[in-house]
Amino acid sequence: MSTVTSLLGAISDVGRDAKRGGYSRPVYSAAELDLRSWFIAEAERRQLEVQTDRNGIIWAWYGPEQDGSLVTGSHLDSVPGGGAFDGPLGVSAALAAVDELRARGVQPGQHGKRSLALTVFPEEEGSRFGIACLGSRLLTGAIDADRARSLKDAEGKSFAELSARNGIAPEQLGADPEGLARIGQFLELHVEQGRGLIDMAAPVAVAGSILGHGRWKFTISGQGNHAGTTLMADRADPMIAAAQIVLSARKVAAAQNDARATVGRLQPIPGGTNVIASRVELWLDVRHPDDAVTAAVVQKIHGQAQIAAANEGCTVTLTEESFSSTTGFDSGLQAELQRLLPGAPVLDSGAGHDAGILAPYLPAGMLFIRNPTGISHSPEEAVEDSDADYAAVALADVLEGLL
Amino acid sequence: MSTVTSLLGAISDVGRDAKRGGYSRPVYSAAELDLRSWFIAEAERRQLEVQTDRNGIIWAWYGPEQDGSLVTGSHLDSVPGGGAFDGPLGVSAALAAVDELRARGVQPGQHGKRSLALTVFPEEEGSRFGIACLGSRLLTGAIDADRARSLKDAEGKSFAELSARNGIAPEQLGADPEGLARIGQFLELHVEQGRGLIDMAAPVAVAGSILGHGRWKFTISGQGNHAGTTLMADRADPMIAAAQIVLSARKVAAAQNDARATVGRLQPIPGGTNVIASRVELWLDVRHPDDAVTAAVVQKIHGQAQIAAANEGCTVTLTEESFSSTTGFDSGLQAELQRLLPGAPVLDSGAGHDAGILAPYLPAGMLFIRNPTGISHSPEEAVEDSDADYAAVALADVLEGLL
Repeated sequence: MSTVTSLLGAISDVGRDAKRGGYSRPVYSAAELDLRSWFIAEAERRQLEVQTDRNGIIWAWYGPEQDGSLVTGSHLDSVPGGGAFDGPLGVSAALAAVDELRARGVQPGQHGKRSLALTVFPEEEGSRFGIACLGSRLLTGAIDADRARSLKDAEGKSFAELSARNGIAPEQLGADPEGLARIGQFLELHVEQGRGLIDMAAPVAVAGSILGHGRWKFTISGQGNHAGTTLMADRADPMIAAAQIVLSARKVAAAQNDARATVGRLQPIPGGTNVIASRVELWLDVRHPDDAVTAAVVQKIHGQAQIAAANEGCTVTLTEESFSSTTGFDSGLQAELQRLLPGAPVLDSGAGHDAGILAPYLPAGMLFIRNPTGISHSPEEAVEDSDADYAAVALADVLEGLL
Repeated sequence: MSTVTSLLGAISDVGRDAKRGGYSRPVYSAAELDLRSWFIAEAERRQLEVQTDRNGIIWAWYGPEQDGSLVTGSHLDSVPGGGAFDGPLGVSAALAAVDELRARGVQPGQHGKRSLALTVFPEEEGSRFGIACLGSRLLTGAIDADRARSLKDAEGKSFAELSARNGIAPEQLGADPEGLARIGQFLELHVEQGRGLIDMAAPVAVAGSILGHGRWKFTISGQGNHAGTTLMADRADPMIAAAQIVLSARKVAAAQNDARATVGRLQPIPGGTNVIASRVELWLDVRHPDDAVTAAVVQKIHGQAQIAAANEGCTVTLTEESFSSTTGFDSGLQAELQRLLPGAPVLDSGAGHDAGILAPYLPAGMLFIRNPTGISHSPEEAVEDSDADYAAVALADVLEGLL
């Protein structure tokens, strides 16, 4: 019987990022493909029936494939320089929970019990193609298939191309009502990405809601030129406007209760030390419980960006890359989870998850596991070994109760 | 007989950058190696004796290799997304000038005339290994060979490794007094990188001096974290301090007569949209005719950076990557150039050049060719065909007069 810690230990060398620290496992990279193969091998070792569907989601069936099954899973891709647990903790806990259920004699798909399926979703982080939860958005039809196909990574490779290279027919990508019908209830176990459970001194929480969030891309265009020969007064330097946008985002979000705004990705083009940039691309991440406030925050930052750009003789364009409303999870499932995990607090999530994408379509819920650093999307993300192994038992308890 | 425009036409497809526009020809990339091969073939077509020296500098001899020769040349590497002329104009003009001299019956190395050599210097831009004019700095000993060997590109490959891969023994890199002794006088023809010759309505100028300049790297360290789960008040986001440094550089330079300060390269690490950066690296380029003022400008920006970082709970370190004092060219050679090109104005250069690195060691001079956009280090850099071909004639006139 595998423990979560031994499962995670087996993949602890895959996709390490020597430069950034932590892990870089973008979807369909060598590292993420290694992890997918590892998951399939672990599922097959457990006699689960494995399929990869038309959107690249891996399903591992415990019991016959059938509508209305109980489904649990997470993702294996990471942000650049991410931690070891964001995604893999939920996948490993699901595998370990299968062992635990088998040890308890629980038999999904038999004696009147529903089947259980484990899933792995591709591109949850959106760190390669820019749209978070791309796999679950495709499954539900929340993203148009044509748009998904044409998304490009930093090297200019399209999602269609990368899917094809990994055996997924690009023309088959898109809404999958039959796949969706297989899911009676969906449960995602995930490392907590803040300090909530530290403060509450609890190892596990039931999710309340997911904060609405979106991504916007600013493109600021100026006049590329030589850094030595161009007088300060003659410049139209888009870096100046970009810097002001970074500071506007901070100021606007800090003044708005519960808002978060972040610029974590910014690229001057061409990007030479002795070159005034001709263009800067930067990405803004904004979150707030009230969608109208999120929109207002973005609008305010955009307004300040336009002024900053005009003052520098530059122009700015804004594109929404993705937006997800604040998502409350199914209240019935939430109540059941609380009944099955007595004493587990309810915790709202500032982060997006595939469970949040599925939530408008079917009863979905989440469990969060304590993170002793409170830090995520960073090598410093952590889970105590005892909490990791406890996660599998808690998940098994819940699955057993829901089956 | 080749013209400069036909020579440049032959390489107009090499190293095009579809993303940035213009050309990306970093030293020892496939593109720059193609250009080096092209130069060698063109030199050999002209019966010049070609050698590549211990520092990767290509020499093409017209007449026997001998001390005190007249040498002219430039570089073939580019900044990312640079123009077609910065470097290749000087190299092409030198090749065309050889044809012109031969047509005039001038025979370098014979009948009491000195030999003429054409040179191509590697990594003039410093866009791959961070130090501009690396080839001429190695030749003169202006950079320590150990430091040069250990310089790394963005992929972590060292200059020693890349040199070895291109047939240059890394242990042989460094000061080359015999190579230096071959140069009696050095002349570099270069596209102008500002608007001086537009305003003076002249096609060619003689260089007066090169503005002192340097590169400094700031590393700002904060706390990487999740963009959704981390409250604004809990952040130590190095992007905030980085943005303030970009604005400080602008403000400090604008307030100082004749100063230029630029941030054209900035990298958040890890660089994910939904990730608060843990570290930002940014490069500052500062130039001023008075070295003490350059130092004061950098110090002032550094002081403001320390305050900005401390206010955000971040730390900042500053490293000088290179510095070159303001360089006046040899006044005797400058006077001869003006005599040989009657009416050519004298123009100071805001940009650094290999000729500026050589100037403290031997009589060096430069010719600048009019750039009708006044823009450089950009796809918009330009030279009129008539000016390009005129450049070769002007260079031939000067070489003939100096031989």
